[in-house]
Amino acid sequence: MPDMTWFASTPNPTGALILLVTLQANAADLNAQVDRYRAMHEAAIVGQLDELARLKSVAADPAGIAATANRLEKLLKERGFDAQQLSAGAGTPPLVFGVLKSAGAKRTVIFYAHYDGQPVTPSQWSSDPFVPVMRSGALNSGEHEIDWKNARSPFDPEWRLFGRAVSDDKASIVAFLAAFDALKAVGKSPSVNIKVLWEGEEEAGSPHLAEVLRNNRGVLASDLILIGDGPVHQSRRPMIYFGARGVMQLEATIYGPVRALHDGHYGNWVPNPAAMAATLIAQMRDENGRILIAGFADGIRALTPDEQFAIRNLPAIDDGLKREFGIGRSEGNEELALSLMRPALNVRGIRAGQVGESAANAIPTTAVISIDFRLVPDQSPPAVRTAVEHFFQAHGWTIVADEPDLATRLGAPRLVRLQWEAGYPAFRADLSAPTGKAVIAAASKAASAPVVVLPMMGGSVPLYEFADVLQVPVIGLPIVNHDNSQHAANENLRLRNLWEGIDTYAAMLAELRW
Amino acid sequence: MPDMTWFASTPNPTGALILLVTLQANAADLNAQVDRYRAMHEAAIVGQLDELARLKSVAADPAGIAATANRLEKLLKERGFDAQQLSAGAGTPPLVFGVLKSAGAKRTVIFYAHYDGQPVTPSQWSSDPFVPVMRSGALNSGEHEIDWKNARSPFDPEWRLFGRAVSDDKASIVAFLAAFDALKAVGKSPSVNIKVLWEGEEEAGSPHLAEVLRNNRGVLASDLILIGDGPVHQSRRPMIYFGARGVMQLEATIYGPVRALHDGHYGNWVPNPAAMAATLIAQMRDENGRILIAGFADGIRALTPDEQFAIRNLPAIDDGLKREFGIGRSEGNEELALSLMRPALNVRGIRAGQVGESAANAIPTTAVISIDFRLVPDQSPPAVRTAVEHFFQAHGWTIVADEPDLATRLGAPRLVRLQWEAGYPAFRADLSAPTGKAVIAAASKAASAPVVVLPMMGGSVPLYEFADVLQVPVIGLPIVNHDNSQHAANENLRLRNLWEGIDTYAAMLAELRW
Repeated sequence: MPDMTWFASTPNPTGALILLVTLQANAADLNAQVDRYRAMHEAAIVGQLDELARLKSVAADPAGIAATANRLEKLLKERGFDAQQLSAGAGTPPLVFGVLKSAGAKRTVIFYAHYDGQPVTPSQWSSDPFVPVMRSGALNSGEHEIDWKNARSPFDPEWRLFGRAVSDDKASIVAFLAAFDALKAVGKSPSVNIKVLWEGEEEAGSPHLAEVLRNNRGVLASDLILIGDGPVHQSRRPMIYFGARGVMQLEATIYGPVRALHDGHYGNWVPNPAAMAATLIAQMRDENGRILIAGFADGIRALTPDEQFAIRNLPAIDDGLKREFGIGRSEGNEELALSLMRPALNVRGIRAGQVGESAANAIPTTAVISIDFRLVPDQSPPAVRTAVEHFFQAHGWTIVADEPDLATRLGAPRLVRLQWEAGYPAFRADLSAPTGKAVIAAASKAASAPVVVLPMMGGSVPLYEFADVLQVPVIGLPIVNHDNSQHAANENLRLRNLWEGIDTYAAMLAELRW
Repeated sequence: MPDMTWFASTPNPTGALILLVTLQANAADLNAQVDRYRAMHEAAIVGQLDELARLKSVAADPAGIAATANRLEKLLKERGFDAQQLSAGAGTPPLVFGVLKSAGAKRTVIFYAHYDGQPVTPSQWSSDPFVPVMRSGALNSGEHEIDWKNARSPFDPEWRLFGRAVSDDKASIVAFLAAFDALKAVGKSPSVNIKVLWEGEEEAGSPHLAEVLRNNRGVLASDLILIGDGPVHQSRRPMIYFGARGVMQLEATIYGPVRALHDGHYGNWVPNPAAMAATLIAQMRDENGRILIAGFADGIRALTPDEQFAIRNLPAIDDGLKREFGIGRSEGNEELALSLMRPALNVRGIRAGQVGESAANAIPTTAVISIDFRLVPDQSPPAVRTAVEHFFQAHGWTIVADEPDLATRLGAPRLVRLQWEAGYPAFRADLSAPTGKAVIAAASKAASAPVVVLPMMGGSVPLYEFADVLQVPVIGLPIVNHDNSQHAANENLRLRNLWEGIDTYAAMLAELRW
């Protein structure tokens, strides 16, 4: 018999009908009930994601961020949540926060995701990043476009929806909402009090997250935080992760001459900033990706035996990924899983002069390098910044924070402008705590198989901020496909991952107990 | 008394009036006469340059190339030249060729320039590259725009006209035409038979020049070739040069994964092409610009004592240039003039991923490096190409000529596509031959001071092709300001250089004797 307290806490005009459906479904287990609900609502669930993906929630579009936050707040209120927007002040993207108590629940779980997406370069996309397109599979797989709005259910679960943020993280938001609606429809009450926290500037490095958490410790009181960010394992098996690398972003602008100069008449005498950029990168990291910056690795914590065991037991994926990515070797000469346990210096982009038809025989005025550092426990961002700046100075660089004037240029043999973006440290939690066991058990039940347990994800999510400020266990609960092209062009979500994600969220809402 | 043979060879309906002016001016020397003519025609001369600069003679615009060639042919025919277009076949930019015999002349001189310009990146220009704008001085000098078409003569000689190819080389073409017109107006006959050769694909590396020269050896017979390309010395003194470095261009496309990948989840395992590009450049050249490619320097010819003497006697300019360019050091730790006697590997551009607001935490799919090599005598382009390709192979690279397929990617730990552009070798002539002495004497007379003698220019002009195919002395006769931003945005011509260039061309036409 279903727990009827649900209907008391969330008003529903069609309660009588739902009660009827619930009673009919009572014999089946939760997964089957949720799957049946989903099968009846596939177009509506995809429609919800389609609607959210059309809202341009990227840093370059503050109005799109605001519209998304308002829409999400409304979606929570429609479901009976006490919802509001938390922010660090005017002009900062708000966190959408909602609370819904569940009668009889002893534990409170925060469901986190972010609703902002990475910047886009539309010219690189096969379709408009903000007008989602359904295709029958991944790009370049012989796929074709699907008119899903006029298609009959059930949808082929290998279909993929393409659009910015559909995977990272709007899929988690939609999976949560659908799971919530499914439980309500089948008359199953949540086993925990629910808090929702959806961030709007994660892709900018979460510069205000810690401040907002600190300012709202009271309303954010909880027993567990589940992070709905990142992809599942490349084996496509559901996954739980217990940590994530930290991240820092740096843009270095290297100055050459004040104007572009003919490289025949001045090359080899006027310093070429493109060549200086190349030398600099080669000095900072070797060909295997090992970072050569003195002091950078200070404080790195070794993997515990449990963590090493978990890594050794990850499904084998390296050979398949090499084929998928079309690469003839790995950079670090070790397994992917081990590579991601190290810190990294990733070159996100280099811009200097021109290439192709626009290339001219000229010495460029500047070279710009965009870098991110991936940190591991217990590297500290301020110490990393200091080490990097010491590195520049030790190599004869003068560091400026703004565009230099002539006197500064003339006085500096090597001149660089460093622009740091907000970052945060890594986090790696205890694999064996009661919360971890409860989450693994619930997720494995939803998946009808043991889930993959990853001690630390290679990508960054601000786990540290939560653990540090709120002093609550933090566990990662990803749902999207690994091959979703997140952070690049043609981001996409495989429908089967959304369907399985709804099952997983339903389990976290209704079957999490410790 | 003027040499009246001029009028015999070139019909002129207003001969009687010109004769009158000529007789009045007879007392003054040639320079003063030419200057007086120029002062009376400043707007028309600048107007001629303005008209030519509006014709988009860049490689990306074949129609603009064709229109420019047609216009130049017409300008020659209007002056009595027997003019035609020489080309290596349909679709290749033609050379505009003209002949005009001078009664009594024993020597024949070819005046070479190129009418094509470097590619443009309009967004970097302060005004449309193909709509010339006059300004009161260099950019960022407190300059203002000049409505020169409505300004009274004399124009301020420090004014500069901005537009693609105004300096490189359309100024030389206009100076030649104006000098020719001035001599005609003052009734002074040329002392040499004149041949004009204006090329249309010099900025593309002159891929068909040698072929056209070979196919037209008969009509191109001459005793001297004067190359109207390159800038005068940075001291702003008129200059003659006896050589030029060769050039080869290379675009290298380095392949990473088939699609951009999240660098948190795959960085340090999936090879990053931007980092590989940086390492590659740092392996090819050291921080002082010394080239580290084995075999690259094979066959380099040492400077003769005469050449070393000429270099030591060049006006001192390094300190002034450092201030002008805003650089705190030179790259090679030696004087500019010596740097340019070495071969060079110039990085013209690097493109990988994104920087700035568009930067995403992604591993780029490719990195593209655009390079030019400047060669010195007696390096051979085929040997250089072989050395560079051996370098790649020795460092573990697989070289492809086209976009690779998946099997090629999977079989190659390091994969690069090399695209070579046509190039040509360097050339350095004997400083002390009779032709050289005659040109230096005539130019010095026009300048009323000894001209600067440069054994070899840093930039490249296809001197070698002429000397090799036509077996005739080749000497460089530049006129434009060194700070003309050629090959970059905001190319410009200082009017005083055009005025002095007209004097120089007049001297070459009327006072060259050996």
